[in-house]
Amino acid sequence: MTSSADPQSIAVPANLQSMACLGGGHGLFQTLRAARLLAVPDITAIVTVADDGGSSGRIRRELGHIPPGDLRMALAALSREDDRGRMWEELLQHRFGGSGALAGHAVGNLLIAGLTDILGSQVRALDVVAELTNSHGRVVPMCEQPLDIEAEVAGLADDPRIMRMLRGQVAVATTPGEVRRVRLMPEHPEAGPDALDAVQRADLITLGPGSWFSSVIPHLLVPQLVEAISAAEARRVVIMNLSNTQLETTGFSPERHVHMLLQHAPALRVDQLLVDSAAQIDSTERRHLERAAQQLGAEVVYADVRYVDQDGRSTDRHCPAKLAHALSALLS
Amino acid sequence: MTSSADPQSIAVPANLQSMACLGGGHGLFQTLRAARLLAVPDITAIVTVADDGGSSGRIRRELGHIPPGDLRMALAALSREDDRGRMWEELLQHRFGGSGALAGHAVGNLLIAGLTDILGSQVRALDVVAELTNSHGRVVPMCEQPLDIEAEVAGLADDPRIMRMLRGQVAVATTPGEVRRVRLMPEHPEAGPDALDAVQRADLITLGPGSWFSSVIPHLLVPQLVEAISAAEARRVVIMNLSNTQLETTGFSPERHVHMLLQHAPALRVDQLLVDSAAQIDSTERRHLERAAQQLGAEVVYADVRYVDQDGRSTDRHCPAKLAHALSALLS
Repeated sequence: MTSSADPQSIAVPANLQSMACLGGGHGLFQTLRAARLLAVPDITAIVTVADDGGSSGRIRRELGHIPPGDLRMALAALSREDDRGRMWEELLQHRFGGSGALAGHAVGNLLIAGLTDILGSQVRALDVVAELTNSHGRVVPMCEQPLDIEAEVAGLADDPRIMRMLRGQVAVATTPGEVRRVRLMPEHPEAGPDALDAVQRADLITLGPGSWFSSVIPHLLVPQLVEAISAAEARRVVIMNLSNTQLETTGFSPERHVHMLLQHAPALRVDQLLVDSAAQIDSTERRHLERAAQQLGAEVVYADVRYVDQDGRSTDRHCPAKLAHALSALLS
Repeated sequence: MTSSADPQSIAVPANLQSMACLGGGHGLFQTLRAARLLAVPDITAIVTVADDGGSSGRIRRELGHIPPGDLRMALAALSREDDRGRMWEELLQHRFGGSGALAGHAVGNLLIAGLTDILGSQVRALDVVAELTNSHGRVVPMCEQPLDIEAEVAGLADDPRIMRMLRGQVAVATTPGEVRRVRLMPEHPEAGPDALDAVQRADLITLGPGSWFSSVIPHLLVPQLVEAISAAEARRVVIMNLSNTQLETTGFSPERHVHMLLQHAPALRVDQLLVDSAAQIDSTERRHLERAAQQLGAEVVYADVRYVDQDGRSTDRHCPAKLAHALSALLS
C-alpha cells in the first residue's frame, strides 16, 4: 500500500452503516477523513469539550460556551468534497490575520458561537453548520457543558515523588512533567444524549488517535460513554497514536498508553487496537502490548496507517486513505 | 393610512422590475424593507463604505477591509421572510456579549470579513451571504475600496468663522459643530462596477434617507455615480429625512438638506423629493424647498411615511409599508 492509497480502491464494507468516532483535535480529523472516504451513511463525531486554549479558549472565557475549536475541526473534516463544501471548510478553518484582537480567531469558531447564541443550543448550531458544508455526518460534543481537565503531574519539582495538580487542557497537553492521571471538572459529567445515541446505534466505534490525556481519555471519564462503548454490539477500535512525540506522553510506550486507558476506565471493553505496523517496537514490547490489550478484551492489529509525504518522508500523521483501508479490512 | 399599513394592500407597479437603493445605515435599512414589500424582482443596495466606528471600524483597522457594518445591515433588510431567512438575519445582526474583545462585534461583520479573506473579494462574499439569507436582492459597496470622510466643521472654536477639519465617519456624524462640506479620501474614487451597473439598469433609484453627511452625500462624491444617476432613464427619488434630529444636521431645514446635495454634486439631477407630509414645515419653508428642488430638476412630493408605534406615538423612523405605498404611488 502506498502512502497515497487510492481512495477509489477502498472496499466499503456493507455492514458499515453507522460510525461513531470519539476523539478531538487533529487525530479525530484524520479518523473522520477516513470515515468520509468510506462513505459511511451515518457518521457521528463525538468531540472532547475541555479545550481552554487559543481562539476556542477565548470564546469559552468570554461567552461561557463549550469551546468550539475541536467541534469546528470535526465539521471541516466531514465537509463535502465539492466547491461549496470546500469553500465552507476553508471558511471554518480560516483564521483572521492582522495584529488586533481578532487575530488568530478561527471564523468557524465565531460562526458556531454566534449560532449557539441565537439558537440557544450548540447542538443545533453545529447542525446548521453541517448543513452549510453539506456534511457527511453530525458533530456533537461528548457533554453539553464546558469541562476542565485537571492532571496529577510528576517531574515538575526537584523531588520526582512530588505531584502537582495542573488545570486546563493547554497546561496538560504541554507540560514538561509526566502526567499520571487526569480528571474532569466537574467529575462524572453526563454524556450528551446525541453522543450516547450515536454510540448505541453504531456498527463501528473508534477512539483516538490524539493527545491521549486531553483528547482521548476525557471520553473515558464520562461514565455513560464507557458503559455504552463497553456494552455496544459494534466493532470497537482504539486507533493508537503513531509515535510518542506528543509532549504530554513523551517516552510512553504503546503498552503504557493502554494501561492509561485502563487506569481511567477499568470497565472499558473494546475489540481491537489498531497499531502502525512500522512502529518501532520490538518483540518484547509487542508481547507487553498484547497482554495489556487483553485486559481491554482486545486483540492488537498492525497495519500501515502512516502518512508518507510526497517526498517519501514519514510523517507523524495518520493517512486517511490507509486508515480507511485498515478499518475496512477489520470489518470484512 | 395607518402606521401599520397593510403590506398585502400595496399595489406593486408592473413597471418596477429593477431598483437601486443608495444609502447606508438605518435609513437604507427602511428603504430596503420597503423594496422587499414591493417584491421588486431585482433589488440592489448600494452602500457607503466610509464607516470607521464600532465593530465595522475595528475590522477595517485590523484587517484592512471595506467596513462591513452597513453592508451587513442591508443584507439583513433584504433577507427572506421565512424561518431560514429570519435565522440568518438574526445571526447577521447578533452582537456578541460578554466583556471581552469579542463583545459588540456583529457576527455578520465577522462572517463577511472571513468570506472576504478566503474569496479575495468582498463582492463575492456579500453574494454568498445573500445566498444564505435567500436574499431579495444584492448588496454591493459603492466603491470597492475603504474610504474616509473628511469634513469642514464650523462652531468648534470660540470664533465661529474658524473652520476645523474632522476625519472619520464617527467624528463627522457626532460632531457638535456645524458641518459645512465633506469630502472623501481618496477623492473622486471609482464607483464599484456592480453599483454602476445597478444604477444604469434600474427603473427606480432611491437616495436616502440617512445621516446626510455620512450615508447620503458620500454617494455624490463618486463622480461616476452622479453621472449615472443624472443620466438615468429611471425614476429617481431622494427620500428626505423625517426630522433633523441627527446631530450632524441639527437645525438644518429640508431646503438646506437639498442645498447640501447641490453643493456637493452640482450636476445631480433627480425627479422627486419624497417628504413626510406631517413634517412641521410652514408654507414659506415649503416654497423654499420647492425652489431648491427645482435646481435638482425635481418636484416635491408629500406623503405619510412616518412609522407610528403600537401606542400611537410618532417615531423618527420611516415606516417600510408606508414608504412602499408612497414609492408605488409615485410610479403609477
